[in-house]
Amino acid sequence: MIPELGRYVTLHKYSKDAPEFQVVEKPIPQPAKGQVLIKIAASPINPSDLSFLRGEYGIKKELPCVPGFEASGKVVASGGGFYANYLKGKNVACTAPSNGDGTWAEYMIASASGCLPLGKDTDPEQGSMSIVNPLTALSLLEIARSKGAKSVVQSAAAGALGQMIHRLAIKQGLEVINIVRRKEQSERLNAQGMSHILVSTENSFDSDLQDLSHRLEATVAFDAVGGTMTGQIAAALPNNSHVIVYGGLSGDACEVRPGALIFQHQTIHGFWLSGYLSGMNPIRILRLSRSVQKLIRNELRSEIRERYGLEGVARAVQDYTTTMSGGKVLIVP
Amino acid sequence: MIPELGRYVTLHKYSKDAPEFQVVEKPIPQPAKGQVLIKIAASPINPSDLSFLRGEYGIKKELPCVPGFEASGKVVASGGGFYANYLKGKNVACTAPSNGDGTWAEYMIASASGCLPLGKDTDPEQGSMSIVNPLTALSLLEIARSKGAKSVVQSAAAGALGQMIHRLAIKQGLEVINIVRRKEQSERLNAQGMSHILVSTENSFDSDLQDLSHRLEATVAFDAVGGTMTGQIAAALPNNSHVIVYGGLSGDACEVRPGALIFQHQTIHGFWLSGYLSGMNPIRILRLSRSVQKLIRNELRSEIRERYGLEGVARAVQDYTTTMSGGKVLIVP
Repeated sequence: MIPELGRYVTLHKYSKDAPEFQVVEKPIPQPAKGQVLIKIAASPINPSDLSFLRGEYGIKKELPCVPGFEASGKVVASGGGFYANYLKGKNVACTAPSNGDGTWAEYMIASASGCLPLGKDTDPEQGSMSIVNPLTALSLLEIARSKGAKSVVQSAAAGALGQMIHRLAIKQGLEVINIVRRKEQSERLNAQGMSHILVSTENSFDSDLQDLSHRLEATVAFDAVGGTMTGQIAAALPNNSHVIVYGGLSGDACEVRPGALIFQHQTIHGFWLSGYLSGMNPIRILRLSRSVQKLIRNELRSEIRERYGLEGVARAVQDYTTTMSGGKVLIVP
Repeated sequence: MIPELGRYVTLHKYSKDAPEFQVVEKPIPQPAKGQVLIKIAASPINPSDLSFLRGEYGIKKELPCVPGFEASGKVVASGGGFYANYLKGKNVACTAPSNGDGTWAEYMIASASGCLPLGKDTDPEQGSMSIVNPLTALSLLEIARSKGAKSVVQSAAAGALGQMIHRLAIKQGLEVINIVRRKEQSERLNAQGMSHILVSTENSFDSDLQDLSHRLEATVAFDAVGGTMTGQIAAALPNNSHVIVYGGLSGDACEVRPGALIFQHQTIHGFWLSGYLSGMNPIRILRLSRSVQKLIRNELRSEIRERYGLEGVARAVQDYTTTMSGGKVLIVP
């Protein structure tokens, strides 16, 4: 039975430091044709959510709006259409529509085509993180291979996505040079079996990164940090390398010395999952999601650190903003 | 008759502010096989020379060394070999060897393959500037066309190279959006027939650049400035554009917001003439130089502002550093 009213987190102000939230009750809408109504089970906070809350994301919605980009849940109603009807009663992973309410809520309307059915034995919490990070990891590694990389460098290696990229790359036969900010992160990841870990705050960082990236022929880097990190990576890598920026965790502009571009012939690219997938044909997307389903118990598994209810959203965002490594933070309505 | 001793400018300290020069007399060397001895007629100061004097160029020579990358002059001796012998007695444009003394001198040893014969009626002063800037302009426009650009944006449009790029692009049917720093430069260039000139210090610069680059579909930009300029250009251009950095006149790291890379999908490249030509087969280089010979009286002509003897090198460098637009500064031994 679908109740009349549902609870929703609403954002009332984009802000770098203090986005303003409320939790409101409002009528649960009916799905139109090709859409489904999902009862949300869990939804992660991703770096892209933080970027959205700051008003810096590639999509800006009219306020107030319901934030949250991905979730898992059960399809409780279909608006009609073959695939939407097929999904009814199933557990799915889903993404928020770009022009409608998001996942930090009890219910959400989604386009059926934005839903992936989850296997019966897939944990709903893991399932809630099976789109953004896994497809980003798979796509970045696909790009690295297309550029002929034998090894890759990544910043933010201690985060959930960083760890995912690492495990997946190893499985695909690529070596990974992992950059973290703190000694403790390095020790923790090392104990988990990660190797080639460099701490960016150490004095020898630049020369260590140069030595290692030349030795392992790492000609592609994934940078989620921006600021001076982008330029440090560009300066260290072998000539003719590519730095792919997919996040700006430092909050600063990427700084790259002209010499690294001109004399070392490095190229700086950006990566945005939405843009990347929208340029892809549906069959390749389906193949990517099948890979995710297969890998989600192992390589694509994310550690969970904390769960918050809808009322706890401000604390949840604060918690995740303060410590982005060491496990994901979930919103569980 | 070749005298025993020649006069050479020597650099004794790489420095940002005050490179140390001397003028010395030393024996004129004999060319080896495949080399020629050139009596230098004139040699320009280019931005790449300033970068070399600061120790920031892609090539760093052991000190003391003779600076200067390009010149014109007469071949007064050949070390043997078909092409070297052919050049004897001819006026040529030449580039300095990457591991030997440069052009700010009375005599220089050059590889014959680094020399281009100048037509009899080519002015030696114009001829001395017929390699670095003209081949840079031709190469940049070749890259822009290969990326499908209908129009291009360029910073440093008031400089000799900027004006050259502008004239050549117009001839090739590309529109150019020209960025200068000062209102007076805009007025002067406008009086010379240049259009689409934007002054980067004006308040409306960012939005004007955005409007104009979208209207003219300018999807490739040439940036010789670096610093915040690179990021301002990247943020303004239509999505999926390319910014090609070929200089760092501001002295600062290129600053680009991650959002411009990620959501707008802009790419930042570097361009270095030496690297570009070394990846090219000799026939294409020869074809490029033929184009230069044809164009040097008009599109590739450079204005000359001042001439200095070898003893005046420190003043010449100072003069050019202070005002890089409004005509070239030549060293005339």
